[in-house]
Amino acid sequence: LLIALDAMGGDHAPREVIAGALLARSELKLDVALVGDKSVIEAELARQEAPASSFEIIHASENIGMDEHPAQAVRAKRDASINVAMGLVKRGVAGAFCSAGNTGAIMASALMNLGRIQGIERPALGTVAPFSERGILVLDVGANADVKPNYLVQFAQMGSAYAERAMGIPNPRVALLNIGGEETKGSELIQEVYGRLGKAGVNFVGNIEGGDVHRGKADVIVTDGFTGNVAIKVTEGVADFIFRELRTALTSKPHYKLAALVLRPALLKMRDRMDPGTYGGVPLLGVNGVVMIAHGNSDARAIRNALRTTHEAAVSGMLDTIRTTAAHKS
Amino acid sequence: LLIALDAMGGDHAPREVIAGALLARSELKLDVALVGDKSVIEAELARQEAPASSFEIIHASENIGMDEHPAQAVRAKRDASINVAMGLVKRGVAGAFCSAGNTGAIMASALMNLGRIQGIERPALGTVAPFSERGILVLDVGANADVKPNYLVQFAQMGSAYAERAMGIPNPRVALLNIGGEETKGSELIQEVYGRLGKAGVNFVGNIEGGDVHRGKADVIVTDGFTGNVAIKVTEGVADFIFRELRTALTSKPHYKLAALVLRPALLKMRDRMDPGTYGGVPLLGVNGVVMIAHGNSDARAIRNALRTTHEAAVSGMLDTIRTTAAHKS
Repeated sequence: LLIALDAMGGDHAPREVIAGALLARSELKLDVALVGDKSVIEAELARQEAPASSFEIIHASENIGMDEHPAQAVRAKRDASINVAMGLVKRGVAGAFCSAGNTGAIMASALMNLGRIQGIERPALGTVAPFSERGILVLDVGANADVKPNYLVQFAQMGSAYAERAMGIPNPRVALLNIGGEETKGSELIQEVYGRLGKAGVNFVGNIEGGDVHRGKADVIVTDGFTGNVAIKVTEGVADFIFRELRTALTSKPHYKLAALVLRPALLKMRDRMDPGTYGGVPLLGVNGVVMIAHGNSDARAIRNALRTTHEAAVSGMLDTIRTTAAHKS
Repeated sequence: LLIALDAMGGDHAPREVIAGALLARSELKLDVALVGDKSVIEAELARQEAPASSFEIIHASENIGMDEHPAQAVRAKRDASINVAMGLVKRGVAGAFCSAGNTGAIMASALMNLGRIQGIERPALGTVAPFSERGILVLDVGANADVKPNYLVQFAQMGSAYAERAMGIPNPRVALLNIGGEETKGSELIQEVYGRLGKAGVNFVGNIEGGDVHRGKADVIVTDGFTGNVAIKVTEGVADFIFRELRTALTSKPHYKLAALVLRPALLKMRDRMDPGTYGGVPLLGVNGVVMIAHGNSDARAIRNALRTTHEAAVSGMLDTIRTTAAHKS
């Protein structure tokens, strides 16, 4: 299975992206095509002392920056690396797409090139919450700021399919993010969704509150893209804040430093478990293809892990499961 | 200024509530009336070896439990401690209300007994985000799961008044919680609110993302009660999670334990800064009176701090500022 990797996407592209592709090839034996400016890619491969023949290189003459307006850029730059890589998936040349580039542009390009799965009204961006042992999928985390009850029911079905197939969680527990445990809590929209999730063909376990997101009470957490985005960014912000404070506290007195040194391995291990780069990529669900988005500031290891996740998702059959589920409902 | 304290409210009432009142009296010289079952209160005062004459005791024959249906309980139990204490504020006997009891019941009782400030369509529950140096007020955090643009504009005005008067922050920076920095980001509702906050008479500094809530970029963060509730509970959940992991990591190897012991003071100091009990109480804004709500699991210190916050809010004139602002807009 060939993965079309956007070599130009991300804060540290192409350097870290290409380094990550090299790791994925040497350590995981993954089959990757690099998509982007051919001369830039070749120069970077040379700089990293990898033979130019390491990967198939697919030339793309344009590039979409991290701050460009997604929909406009995708339409204006038809030969952007994101569009070219997505085209490889569309034509069946590649079995999956992966990029650390502009998230909005990836979503727009996926919709334009691959289209929605029949029966899915809106694609959703999933993410795997940091901290969790076997992974907790939260969706939507930003594709849809405004939602309708239908969308959330479909997010639950897509999330369940992804968790079961791609993440290997049998009969995943699906919960609705809410501000209380009871059926009568939350906005009118959420209360309507609550009533429908029991009949949506998923293992619905009820509401989950913000404080329990990271406690492993559910495998799939369904929410609108506004709340989900805030929840995930707050999580990252709080973790960053605490680790920064910890560093300050541990260097505030000379006699702390030795103790901190002793604890370093334990702290690093903990930090690692909370790093989004450990999981690597997050899926865009509901489009006709496997589309994985890596964090913008991915380093080589994060890209390697995103490519692993992309490969797992592509071979898992999750796309067929979503198609089957969605077709039954439409 | 007399504070009407609900002696029966909270997970550890009346023990910790009364212990907190004693601390507030001895350490802060605050004037507190204890509202609740007189015989229970007197017995608890005796148990804590405080003279029965320590406080004015206002008898209330009923009590609303933490899990009761708020609106129903408030209407059915007219002589509940929450209603009796709120009545003291209504009649001007007390200058402020404080309780660690059922939040929904406190909101319902405040609406029923005190009513809304003219020009305010919906009261909002504020909270002070943990971690912040001088305090970051987030509102609404749960009173309104469904909102209209008007409400959010009023939340901004009330939050600004509270931050300036009660928290002592001059010209507080007001930000809108959103999923991106630009004016065109977020739900339709949020985009409309963005356009109106520039003319709302507050120091509007634009959008703030979830990851920046704890970074001190704004003093007042405006959001709907659904998103705000999730954001605050995620914050508490992540902090709890990290500290639990930290404890596990620091006791995972024998030679870590001594190092952990050395670091204990630094870690405790950090933990303290993140404890909601340090700030104590969160205000219900938009009702005709000073209403402060303490965390349900408050201990004596948290109650003491909530009473301090209640007193500061009551003497600050924040209520008059909100009334003036709201009257101008209505």
